[in-house]
Amino acid sequence: MSQQHHPDDDQLHKLRHSLAHILAQAVLEVRPEAKLGFGPPVENGFYYDFDFGDRPIGPEDFPDLEERMQRIVKARQEFEGFEQDLQESEAMLGTTDQHYKIEYARELVEKGIAQGGRLTFFRNGPFLDMCEGPHLKHTGEVPKACFKLDKIAGSYWRGDEHRPMLTRIYALAFPSRDELKEFLGRRELAMQRDHKKLGAELELFFHDDDVGVGLPLWLPGGTAIREELERWAKEEEFRAGYQRVSTPIITRAGLYHRSGHLPYYAESMYPPMLVDEHDEYYLRPMNCPHHHKIYASRGRSYRELPLRLCEYGNVFRYEKHGSLSGLLRVRAMCMNDAHIYCAYEQIGEEFANVMALYDRYYQHLHLSEFRARLSLHDPDSPKFAKDVDEWRRCEDIMRSILKEAGVDFEEEVGEAAFYGPKLDLQMKNLMGREETVSTVQLDFLMPGRFGLTFTDRDGSRQAPYIIHRAPLSTHERFISFLIERFGGAFPTWLAPIQVALIPVGEHALAYADELRRTLTERLFRVELDDSSETFNKRIRTAVTRKIPNLWILGAEETAARSVTWRRYGVKEQQRLDLAKALDTLDALRAGRVMDNLPETAWPQI
Amino acid sequence: MSQQHHPDDDQLHKLRHSLAHILAQAVLEVRPEAKLGFGPPVENGFYYDFDFGDRPIGPEDFPDLEERMQRIVKARQEFEGFEQDLQESEAMLGTTDQHYKIEYARELVEKGIAQGGRLTFFRNGPFLDMCEGPHLKHTGEVPKACFKLDKIAGSYWRGDEHRPMLTRIYALAFPSRDELKEFLGRRELAMQRDHKKLGAELELFFHDDDVGVGLPLWLPGGTAIREELERWAKEEEFRAGYQRVSTPIITRAGLYHRSGHLPYYAESMYPPMLVDEHDEYYLRPMNCPHHHKIYASRGRSYRELPLRLCEYGNVFRYEKHGSLSGLLRVRAMCMNDAHIYCAYEQIGEEFANVMALYDRYYQHLHLSEFRARLSLHDPDSPKFAKDVDEWRRCEDIMRSILKEAGVDFEEEVGEAAFYGPKLDLQMKNLMGREETVSTVQLDFLMPGRFGLTFTDRDGSRQAPYIIHRAPLSTHERFISFLIERFGGAFPTWLAPIQVALIPVGEHALAYADELRRTLTERLFRVELDDSSETFNKRIRTAVTRKIPNLWILGAEETAARSVTWRRYGVKEQQRLDLAKALDTLDALRAGRVMDNLPETAWPQI
Repeated sequence: MSQQHHPDDDQLHKLRHSLAHILAQAVLEVRPEAKLGFGPPVENGFYYDFDFGDRPIGPEDFPDLEERMQRIVKARQEFEGFEQDLQESEAMLGTTDQHYKIEYARELVEKGIAQGGRLTFFRNGPFLDMCEGPHLKHTGEVPKACFKLDKIAGSYWRGDEHRPMLTRIYALAFPSRDELKEFLGRRELAMQRDHKKLGAELELFFHDDDVGVGLPLWLPGGTAIREELERWAKEEEFRAGYQRVSTPIITRAGLYHRSGHLPYYAESMYPPMLVDEHDEYYLRPMNCPHHHKIYASRGRSYRELPLRLCEYGNVFRYEKHGSLSGLLRVRAMCMNDAHIYCAYEQIGEEFANVMALYDRYYQHLHLSEFRARLSLHDPDSPKFAKDVDEWRRCEDIMRSILKEAGVDFEEEVGEAAFYGPKLDLQMKNLMGREETVSTVQLDFLMPGRFGLTFTDRDGSRQAPYIIHRAPLSTHERFISFLIERFGGAFPTWLAPIQVALIPVGEHALAYADELRRTLTERLFRVELDDSSETFNKRIRTAVTRKIPNLWILGAEETAARSVTWRRYGVKEQQRLDLAKALDTLDALRAGRVMDNLPETAWPQI
Repeated sequence: MSQQHHPDDDQLHKLRHSLAHILAQAVLEVRPEAKLGFGPPVENGFYYDFDFGDRPIGPEDFPDLEERMQRIVKARQEFEGFEQDLQESEAMLGTTDQHYKIEYARELVEKGIAQGGRLTFFRNGPFLDMCEGPHLKHTGEVPKACFKLDKIAGSYWRGDEHRPMLTRIYALAFPSRDELKEFLGRRELAMQRDHKKLGAELELFFHDDDVGVGLPLWLPGGTAIREELERWAKEEEFRAGYQRVSTPIITRAGLYHRSGHLPYYAESMYPPMLVDEHDEYYLRPMNCPHHHKIYASRGRSYRELPLRLCEYGNVFRYEKHGSLSGLLRVRAMCMNDAHIYCAYEQIGEEFANVMALYDRYYQHLHLSEFRARLSLHDPDSPKFAKDVDEWRRCEDIMRSILKEAGVDFEEEVGEAAFYGPKLDLQMKNLMGREETVSTVQLDFLMPGRFGLTFTDRDGSRQAPYIIHRAPLSTHERFISFLIERFGGAFPTWLAPIQVALIPVGEHALAYADELRRTLTERLFRVELDDSSETFNKRIRTAVTRKIPNLWILGAEETAARSVTWRRYGVKEQQRLDLAKALDTLDALRAGRVMDNLPETAWPQI
């Protein structure tokens, strides 16, 4: 969700800030000796920092504190603001030895932040706090059941690890009970669907400390998803006239000096390796220069354009250790990359084709929670290439195609790549947090830097334009989105295990094993659960693993050569002839049917 | 061809050595002032080094020299050996100022190599040379037209770049004129089929200096071959119960200390990158440790074994600059790798299954020019793990399975991996030069080093054994073999372009374009040549590019919706209904038919 200013924001800010005071008042009722730190409103609620000395407070105290807060709300205490000078403030805060507050008061005055040396305080009931406000009129304005104490964390005073560690109590607070409930539901869902949690539970990927940080290892389940996405991309790109290439993952430093990524981009790259005594090689952070080299490997004619080179390419980015997270922020990734080299007059059609490909992918996957952002250059920034005409031409083309295609987009100045404007697809996760899932860039700079040309119809040499695109993003980022979007319940074509065979009784074993062989021969990912567990236990196991199709095979099915088909998340089951069942499975895979979504739960069987 | 000692070798050695003297005699006829270096027999012939001062000799002098050599042969000069001491030798060689020979004579005596200080000489006709012999009885024993002067190269005296540069004349020599002719034919073929030459001509791959050395970039044509091989491997491996994984290309140094590859193997690896201030990361030289980590990612039960983990994995080896060559020796490669974790009792069946997979691949590709070498440990070498019993057990298993499978193999002591015995598949190139194309290793050491275990039926914890295998080798090495094996003429399923459409006349253009779209939709790699060149020129272009299938489309074909199908290397062409043609193409691809080989030139159409 983009953070825009909203008329209700002021009121929400007041509510959360006032609740922070109410929390502190409740805490002081049970820990009168507690020393207060800061207590600001934050996203989704507020927190307050306390020094509890040797009488800590924990989550087990939350119900009592919440009750006390409710009582304070009912008491309709008025918030009353007033000012004092530093001496008066020190005296007042000194009566309960609030030394953190006193320290801060002195700093505000010393630094001239407190206007005219006057400090602002708010009082409600017995509670007093140094703060700027604003606040609600009285505590009774807090809506019923709109807040909830959430969790406890440690936090250094002033964020300085040499100062005391305080206890931070986080709380959630929304304008209404319903909004709190909705947030809690969403958060619960997000936690259940968290790709790191599901990635471990469903055995899709893991990290290993011996291998390194930010370097996921993909288990067979996750690899199956990668391979299916690649197969899809390869077919789509083949039909759309792309040509596949395969280029080295390392390269000499000179290539990035030429592109302009070195030295400026160096801090986002792994350090170089010194080879053959004097030669620096880098792990590549992007595939572009390698593709440019393929373009330049021989002379090109206008007849060859547009030349569309594609590669699922491994790239490496040195992300800070602290910012790494699951599959979303990693250091090694595999990108659904391509570069389209075309003449100026071809940009429009090629860009429209790329947009159509995006549309096909995203519609097919039922991904709609994204917005398009057209990122433009900032003429005042030195970061961007200096060609005013090119910027205008390229930005105009992109803008007009997006409008023609009816794409809803926002423009943002200063977010372009240094070599041209780009379209960013911003996808929201379940918590409404936005990430860039993919970009399309229009590049007028690199052809010059790499000396890329083509011989035009009239014999003249021209420079091509380049469209950079990666609709399926990196496997790492895209699959993290897919896991969370589907809560780990993948459609048949993407599912790590596509069919679980569950024989009932000894007499069905041979039939089950025959089906296992038949499905394997047809390249379906199948598992036969012939363990000695009970029927119900085996069903539960398959459901826990979110396997989309369960084929139950008992005496009747064996005799009739049929299967009883149970689908993930669907109550009814169906009995089908084996031939029909196999055909259906074929159709689910061949059509890449999104049969994990409610509307296709029983697709055309 | 393995270099084994052969009864004819002595005679061939004498022939080549005697011819070297005959060459030197001929050279001295035209350059009496020339100083002689060494003139030994070598593989395929002999050479002689000369110092020509300021009167050089070049290939343009070869016909004259060959004529003079023939005259010497006809003269039936006897080879007469005798001995002298150093002083006599110096005097004799001094008469024509043969100072290189004198230098060498002194060295032989000083180092005590000349027995009793006596030096051996051979004289034939007017020519005298210091040499050990043996020689033919007389020059008339040289068979007719059995030799040929080949080329000239520079060579430092004693291989020392600070000593004078001599002129080396290379010559070919075989026991008969026919054998010389056969060799020349083979060499001509090898040159035509050289994968570096064909790789450039057919636009399969190239190297770029800005990208780096030993790092081929694969063009669309070469990438198509890679992708087809991968698809084949993936299907075969899936049906054989392998599970695909995907693991990072870099890793912390500790992983290789654990495996034992560091520090010993360091000189074959790229240097480490220092990351996060204190952490060394390496480009991986092999995939094994990553797969071991996947095995170890959770507890394993005997029920899961054999666990077969496979990956087309990118690996990096630091080969010396001078030893790099085309695709055969590179620094970055992609390997058809897998590791099979199994219990001791399962080794036999798993190893036999692996051998069967090799057999299927090689038979299918009609690759028969290889031999199997069972590489055993050397109990006296410190290089090998110290467990005598394990070595015996593992070597015995491999030996008995190879015998059972009827594989013809040789044993070689000391060629094992340090962690276990291995089977090497040695493939011959067109010149008979042998390279290892692939190995199967049986590993009893790494499970201990990586703490790999499984819970056995009885609840005990056991260590698995590991089979390492890569039947399709690396893409780089395997495709270099395939290019040379097929002379760049690939079967339909592997061919970079599978069908060339050649319309004849304006009226066929629409039909040709329709076929282009139909074939593209069916994922065939197709090219429509609608250029303005003549029909014959377009046919020649397609043939030069070794495109396996040419569909010629004229007025008749358009009217009848048929195609005239011409196949690469086949004289007759056939007219087929479009539907039948499409079915045939489907069948060629689906069956991965080796339709580039003479016996399948017109496969079941």
